[in-house]
This record gives sequence, C-alpha cells and structure tokens, in this order.
Amino acid sequence: MNYGFQRTVSLDIDTAEQRIRESLMEQGFGILTEIDVQKAFKEKLNIDFKRYRILGACNPQLAHQALCQEEAIGLLMPCNVVLWSDDENTTISIASATSILKLTEADLSELSSQVDELLQQALEAV
Amino acid sequence: MNYGFQRTVSLDIDTAEQRIRESLMEQGFGILTEIDVQKAFKEKLNIDFKRYRILGACNPQLAHQALCQEEAIGLLMPCNVVLWSDDENTTISIASATSILKLTEADLSELSSQVDELLQQALEAV
Repeated sequence: MNYGFQRTVSLDIDTAEQRIRESLMEQGFGILTEIDVQKAFKEKLNIDFKRYRILGACNPQLAHQALCQEEAIGLLMPCNVVLWSDDENTTISIASATSILKLTEADLSELSSQVDELLQQALEAV
Repeated sequence: MNYGFQRTVSLDIDTAEQRIRESLMEQGFGILTEIDVQKAFKEKLNIDFKRYRILGACNPQLAHQALCQEEAIGLLMPCNVVLWSDDENTTISIASATSILKLTEADLSELSSQVDELLQQALEAV
C-alpha cells in the first residue's frame, strides 16, 4: 500500500483504538473526527460490514503551518487513521502525509516528512 | 488547484454551508464529519484564524464499492468539502476523487469519475 503505514496487532479493535489514540496524543496529534463505517453501512445500506473505523488525526501546529502555505489544503486534512479487525487481530493503517501532500503544488516536503515521522512513531508505539 | 473543484459565492459561510449540504444530499452524499478549524486553532494554539470549516462528505453506496476493492481506502475517505470566508464571500472547495484516488493501486477510475461528476453538480447547484 503506497499511501500509508500499516501494522497488524493481536488486539481487539477497541483496545487498538485506545492505544493508537494515546500514542498519537504523545506525538501531538488529537483526534478531531470519527466514523464508524460498520455502523454507517448498517444504517444507510442495511449491509453487514466488518468492524471498520476512520479517525481523523491532527497536529494543530503543523496543520496551521500547512494552511498558511496553501489555503485549500484542508481538503487533505485531517490525517486519517483507519482500523479494521477480524476476531483476533486489528490492522491499523495511517495515511502518509508525504504521499498525500504530493498532490499539492506547495512545497511541503519538509513539513510532511516531519508529520510522517511522528505518525510512524505513534504506530510503532502501539 | 489540482486536487479539487472550487467556487467563490457571494454568501456568508453559514448560508454557503447550508446550501452545499443540501445540494450534496441531493446527489446522495451525507456529511459524516465536521471540523471548525477557526475554533480549533483558537482553542489549541490561541491563534485567530479566518472562518474555515472542513466537512466530510460520503456517498455510502460508492464508499462501499471502493472499500470492497481496496481495504485501506478509508485512508482517503470521506471526500472533503472545505469552506472559508472573508466578510462578503465564501469559497467552497471540494476534493476531486479522481485526483485523490490516483494514489491507490486499485482501478477506481470509473467510480472516481462518477463521484466527481456528482460533486461538481452539487457545487454548481449552490
């Protein structure tokens, strides 16, 4: 997968979510949004989907820097953290800012490398 | 800007948000997330930023199709709609699924064209 970092851990989805929230917080990222995809598909489509959640992580200082460089860059924020699970394991996948911010014309390579380093540290710490 | 569609309208941000929500709903998109960036920067950084909001739009059927093709694609969801304003005008910017889903390895060109067509229609209808 060429637009994120991924790890599968022997944890249920609730524990994995709690751990990644804590380790993201240690790197300066708060969770601003949360989508329970399983619940949404059940409600909207009456389809049974696996446990799948999308969290929107944001480091306010780095987000502010990016927005001061390119006004529309909110289109690519926040940085998504996705969790899905079967009965025994949970996969945690985090979007790579370096990959995604390549879509912009602004030079954000230094900033996005910094973001990716923090996100990778958070993922390793789970 | 090469990763979205944009329009500036002579409306205040609240009216523009209401209109784009309605026109997105007509195209089958619900709003799943909402970030008040101005408020977040004030709270977290004590910085006065312009009125700037990020809405996360999702068409459940098309999202389900994409997730069945590539498990990690939630990293690139939902489709963001950004609004920012000065005293008289509001700019509405919508992420282009075609541009963003090019990051994936899955062949989602038909699906993403369909998404973009619906989003463009919603933007034109504001």
